[in-house]
Amino acid sequence: MIANPKIIDAVTTYRNIRSHSLAICAPLETEDFVVQPIVDVSPPKWHLGHTTWFFETFILVPNFPGYTVFDPQYNFVFNSYYETIGARVIRTDRGNLSRPSVADVYRYREYVDRQMTAFLQSEFMNPSIEPLLELGLNHEQQHQELLLTDIKYILGHNPLFPAYRKDKEENKEMVRTDEMIRLGEGVYEIGFNGNGFCFDNELGRHKVYLNNFEISDRLVTNGEYLEFINDNGYRDFRHWHAEGWDWVKQNEVKSPLYWHWIDEKWMYYTLDGLQEVDPDEAVCHINFYEASAFAAWKGMRLPTEAEWEVASVHFQWGERWEWTGSAYLPYPGFKKEAGAVGEYNGKFMVNQMVLRGASEATPKGHSRNTYRNFFHANLQWQFTGIRLAR
Amino acid sequence: MIANPKIIDAVTTYRNIRSHSLAICAPLETEDFVVQPIVDVSPPKWHLGHTTWFFETFILVPNFPGYTVFDPQYNFVFNSYYETIGARVIRTDRGNLSRPSVADVYRYREYVDRQMTAFLQSEFMNPSIEPLLELGLNHEQQHQELLLTDIKYILGHNPLFPAYRKDKEENKEMVRTDEMIRLGEGVYEIGFNGNGFCFDNELGRHKVYLNNFEISDRLVTNGEYLEFINDNGYRDFRHWHAEGWDWVKQNEVKSPLYWHWIDEKWMYYTLDGLQEVDPDEAVCHINFYEASAFAAWKGMRLPTEAEWEVASVHFQWGERWEWTGSAYLPYPGFKKEAGAVGEYNGKFMVNQMVLRGASEATPKGHSRNTYRNFFHANLQWQFTGIRLAR
Amino acid sequence: MIANPKIIDAVTTYRNIRSHSLAICAPLETEDFVVQPIVDVSPPKWHLGHTTWFFETFILVPNFPGYTVFDPQYNFVFNSYYETIGARVIRTDRGNLSRPSVADVYRYREYVDRQMTAFLQSEFMNPSIEPLLELGLNHEQQHQELLLTDIKYILGHNPLFPAYRKDKEENKEMVRTDEMIRLGEGVYEIGFNGNGFCFDNELGRHKVYLNNFEISDRLVTNGEYLEFINDNGYRDFRHWHAEGWDWVKQNEVKSPLYWHWIDEKWMYYTLDGLQEVDPDEAVCHINFYEASAFAAWKGMRLPTEAEWEVASVHFQWGERWEWTGSAYLPYPGFKKEAGAVGEYNGKFMVNQMVLRGASEATPKGHSRNTYRNFFHANLQWQFTGIRLAR
Amino acid sequence: MIANPKIIDAVTTYRNIRSHSLAICAPLETEDFVVQPIVDVSPPKWHLGHTTWFFETFILVPNFPGYTVFDPQYNFVFNSYYETIGARVIRTDRGNLSRPSVADVYRYREYVDRQMTAFLQSEFMNPSIEPLLELGLNHEQQHQELLLTDIKYILGHNPLFPAYRKDKEENKEMVRTDEMIRLGEGVYEIGFNGNGFCFDNELGRHKVYLNNFEISDRLVTNGEYLEFINDNGYRDFRHWHAEGWDWVKQNEVKSPLYWHWIDEKWMYYTLDGLQEVDPDEAVCHINFYEASAFAAWKGMRLPTEAEWEVASVHFQWGERWEWTGSAYLPYPGFKKEAGAVGEYNGKFMVNQMVLRGASEATPKGHSRNTYRNFFHANLQWQFTGIRLAR
Repeated sequence: MIANPKIIDAVTTYRNIRSHSLAICAPLETEDFVVQPIVDVSPPKWHLGHTTWFFETFILVPNFPGYTVFDPQYNFVFNSYYETIGARVIRTDRGNLSRPSVADVYRYREYVDRQMTAFLQSEFMNPSIEPLLELGLNHEQQHQELLLTDIKYILGHNPLFPAYRKDKEENKEMVRTDEMIRLGEGVYEIGFNGNGFCFDNELGRHKVYLNNFEISDRLVTNGEYLEFINDNGYRDFRHWHAEGWDWVKQNEVKSPLYWHWIDEKWMYYTLDGLQEVDPDEAVCHINFYEASAFAAWKGMRLPTEAEWEVASVHFQWGERWEWTGSAYLPYPGFKKEAGAVGEYNGKFMVNQMVLRGASEATPKGHSRNTYRNFFHANLQWQFTGIRLAR
Repeated sequence: MIANPKIIDAVTTYRNIRSHSLAICAPLETEDFVVQPIVDVSPPKWHLGHTTWFFETFILVPNFPGYTVFDPQYNFVFNSYYETIGARVIRTDRGNLSRPSVADVYRYREYVDRQMTAFLQSEFMNPSIEPLLELGLNHEQQHQELLLTDIKYILGHNPLFPAYRKDKEENKEMVRTDEMIRLGEGVYEIGFNGNGFCFDNELGRHKVYLNNFEISDRLVTNGEYLEFINDNGYRDFRHWHAEGWDWVKQNEVKSPLYWHWIDEKWMYYTLDGLQEVDPDEAVCHINFYEASAFAAWKGMRLPTEAEWEVASVHFQWGERWEWTGSAYLPYPGFKKEAGAVGEYNGKFMVNQMVLRGASEATPKGHSRNTYRNFFHANLQWQFTGIRLAR
Repeated sequence: MIANPKIIDAVTTYRNIRSHSLAICAPLETEDFVVQPIVDVSPPKWHLGHTTWFFETFILVPNFPGYTVFDPQYNFVFNSYYETIGARVIRTDRGNLSRPSVADVYRYREYVDRQMTAFLQSEFMNPSIEPLLELGLNHEQQHQELLLTDIKYILGHNPLFPAYRKDKEENKEMVRTDEMIRLGEGVYEIGFNGNGFCFDNELGRHKVYLNNFEISDRLVTNGEYLEFINDNGYRDFRHWHAEGWDWVKQNEVKSPLYWHWIDEKWMYYTLDGLQEVDPDEAVCHINFYEASAFAAWKGMRLPTEAEWEVASVHFQWGERWEWTGSAYLPYPGFKKEAGAVGEYNGKFMVNQMVLRGASEATPKGHSRNTYRNFFHANLQWQFTGIRLAR
Repeated sequence: MIANPKIIDAVTTYRNIRSHSLAICAPLETEDFVVQPIVDVSPPKWHLGHTTWFFETFILVPNFPGYTVFDPQYNFVFNSYYETIGARVIRTDRGNLSRPSVADVYRYREYVDRQMTAFLQSEFMNPSIEPLLELGLNHEQQHQELLLTDIKYILGHNPLFPAYRKDKEENKEMVRTDEMIRLGEGVYEIGFNGNGFCFDNELGRHKVYLNNFEISDRLVTNGEYLEFINDNGYRDFRHWHAEGWDWVKQNEVKSPLYWHWIDEKWMYYTLDGLQEVDPDEAVCHINFYEASAFAAWKGMRLPTEAEWEVASVHFQWGERWEWTGSAYLPYPGFKKEAGAVGEYNGKFMVNQMVLRGASEATPKGHSRNTYRNFFHANLQWQFTGIRLAR
């Protein structure tokens, strides 16, 4: 029998992507897998279990005859929402669950991966399942980014500031120019129209009318952001949205997340541990309020997502998720897909802002210039940055 | 001396608009002026004082030599934000302030109106002040709408359900058609470009590209909304945004605001008191989550604000504020004005949705098809309704 | 027919006590009757209605044939707990109810008073009703004290600081001695055993064993309390209970309630308006945490309620409610009475502290040295003070 | 050289008590050491570190020349209150700290235990240190009880309900009698006056006067508590304190903690896993509100702590912590000790109720009939039970 190269490819892709999740977790202690310091952060073992649950629930159970669920209670633990099972209802937060243990979760992954490998090579695998497989793998990649941001939060909010990496990564030197890219007004097209995978929220390539605009060819640096701080940026309400200003005052914010004023110096927690702030690096871990306030202080603004997408061929991107001035709303003609998968994106289309690009935490092969990332305006724990426009 | 007709006109306009605020409050008991059942609702006497404070602070004090402030402490009470005065800081909510009394607030209005009349006829009035006068009068009209919505909330949440009006107003019979207005794709222009007054957020007439769309020529009725309720609309998460669904569950919402299921019938509180729900009337007091869920249930959607504005010449509007699917964001080229007036609109441009049209509570002469009203997605107490699109 | 002097006496007592409630409210503006700045404070019109509802519900309705309830919905409004009426459930706070109007509440009082007068002189009045009548009148007197404390809170938290009284009352000059009254150890009796009225929680006169103790013959003054403040009393955790210290920090407390540091002087709001703190007056409006911390700072303690009661014949009391070191618990043999009246006291016997004495706000004839007042340890709005013991 | 038997004894006692903490944790997975599902529960590794920190901070650092602190940052992590260290302030909850790892904490214990052993045998150990050593060991024993209650909470709130023990412990069969022990009125003495260790709150043996009372010779059983449940005990407000009733309604409480109604049976989580409720076992995990409500339903009451202590020689105790009707207040003549140790008990003497006896989780040798345990009235997670009195 001759192997079908397409299936081999699927198995390889599946294994490569799945093993990357474990690679991200390799430096962790068992204890790091368990905690959940804020509601937006999930325990690493939950990410590992939840992505596995996705393949088990949506691919193996409905499509692989004879498949036995690893543990029927895992549905309860690794579903995104804890709901009733039978007569028992226990409301718990993810960060309170010491069991299943990390070893159990790894066994769960091994079991499902073995079964998935068998399934992908079996007669039951067929082209109609490919979209779900692709979705599952992209879902895994999204959680790989979250794994890293959540690990950073867990370690960076520990008073011992443990480093995640032993070997310091070199910072990319940003080329500092002050070039603004100019684009002329007119009708442009945005949205996905390629052949590969994309999420439903990118679909529906459509025309938009843009006015003349300019957009920077680089990200704002820590040094520039420090000028904003030193110019009382966090103390002058005029730069801020009303609810951004409330956020600043209620939380007594004085700097980006992870920054600490220690011994008369700005330090920040990085994956290499606590370090002095590098003025040449792109500012990171700022939320939409901060990005907007900085832009207002500069007399500029954030680009819209359409401007960003149209201009993106003219600059380098991928270092930070870049806040845009666009709310996360459906594209013209957007349709939720039927079933559980349809919940994926559409139901979040209110009160969130779009981010474009990708970050140093984004897995390779998981970025497109049509990708629409989205977060609430107050959140800082992603690797977010600022690109100015006017 | 011959009177300048323009000044006479300003005085007349000023008096007409100002007296309308009092007309709205005429049916109230003194006690109704004082309370604040929820944070979004202000006590009627606060509206009366705050709008007066606007003219005193922004027109009389800086421009009318010799003007004596009515009471220096009113700045503290009727400013939108209570801040420190001298050494004293007392944090209080508007609804806890029994003083100044209603009689004092009326005296305050009379005093400022007398002074404004004198000022408008004096040599100190000049064209440069006109924009501020116009803003003050439009500000008063905005509060007239809020006065009515807040009075309805205050009386409608009293267990005695007192009527606001003695004489029942006839309900406008909506003509029920099922006509959809069709517009073709292309570049359109939206935004204000007339000669009269508009708010800063309407400025910057600009081009937008619209796809083919259809929009209903009428509002959704109570009868249609009842079908949604009866079809388990409030119990099926699939129609809702994720945070809309949280809102439904946390508040155990089962119907629009003011609706009560009494003796096997749907009743609602109206300004005429508690009445049986009229199935032919336009549904009212629903929030963005409800409007979106209803539209999703219908297999349709809400129009964008650009679609609404472009199509608005083809249908009657003004009965309900109509939720759009657009987030409240700056138009291209939007600039905050300098000074306190600059805070008017721009700082709210995050996490709110645009409503278009006007409502039965909107003062005459205060509506335009470019007017951009905005509220948070969870708020129901305005006279809000639904127009479907697809 | 010859009038029965006992009944005449009941009518006179009833009228005298009832009219005193109105006398307390005489200086108020209509608006002052409506607001509720904090949950512990009730709107004055609610006190007036609630005490009236007590007579209507517990005396007239069950005992006076043919009595017609003034308004069936008032049961809903003036009961201590808002509950369901028929199919309607509206959760409202007392401070949000503009209706019934103050005029309506006064009409309600007149109606019930007229009916009570008729009832007391009718054949239906009989001795078995006397305990309820007495309870109703004592209940009214308790609310008279609350009326005054709540009015002080309402006016004292208004930024205009309106005076309640036109004519300043003379402060009682406290005789400042440093005498400690000494009592020897042994078995004493406490609890009510007189002939007049008392509350159920005072009943069960019983023996207690007291050790040798000393108790001050006077209250702590503002001047002494200022020494505590100036000695960093509010900044040294060692004086405080753990939860008292949390209260200080969370609320940034730096002084008793109503004190304001203005232009380098300690001022306080009094019923005569804002005045300079009088160092010779007994300190007022401090809570149990503050009283305990002050005593600890002095190297002393608060008396137990048994010590206070036993020693009370040796000193003057009645100017302030005096915090004791005793928790509010049932006396030996305490029994709840059956029915709604049984809820009066017993159900509050957990997590509250006993206060003994009476205050300037206590109606004449409503104090006994066996009276057990009780409040939560964090509350300051009563006229509370400190008597030291060791 | 001849060994000093007293020191050998100290070393042995130290080692025995310290090793018992580890024995309690032996059945745990690493993950179980980390989580904190509610604020009252601490992560097991925190207990292990905190008790170790006590010996390091109060004994080794001040008394053992040349002692090197294991890790200077542990003071920050294992102190009861996280406070500022140098310029850094990170507010974190215990349950969010993945580091120090469990292995690190065990190394910390080994290090301190080795040093303590050396210290106890060194010339620097002297009798003046004995009280602190004794306090440290009793502190460790208190945390051993908390370790078990917290472990039960962590495992018992996991949807997988993992068993703590492999081998089921036999339930003690309670001898069910209905004997009431009768004691006559008179002066009794309570408080500690032995020679061994006691906490400061037990000191000051003093006279109390007790009335005639009866107290049960056994605890209330699950079977009896079920009668209360089945007689609508959780639905009839008349049995409850007002704030107990609020607690029932807000939390929709229908049974003791750990009880689940599954497949028409009452099950409960035990250290052996989920089991059917044993009607003959003493009811457990009820709070003060529940204990009081049960007693009220029975027409009885809880004993005072003085009654309990006086009567305790006549019955068996030690199976459950028994709620008393006494608030936790200082005994006559109570004095806080100076320094950090003085904070141990006194600062908690408000708004807590006394429990007497001991429980199955109390370490051997750590119970006395003068021991005053105390918890807030709403807490259920200790091994608490009910003994009736009248």
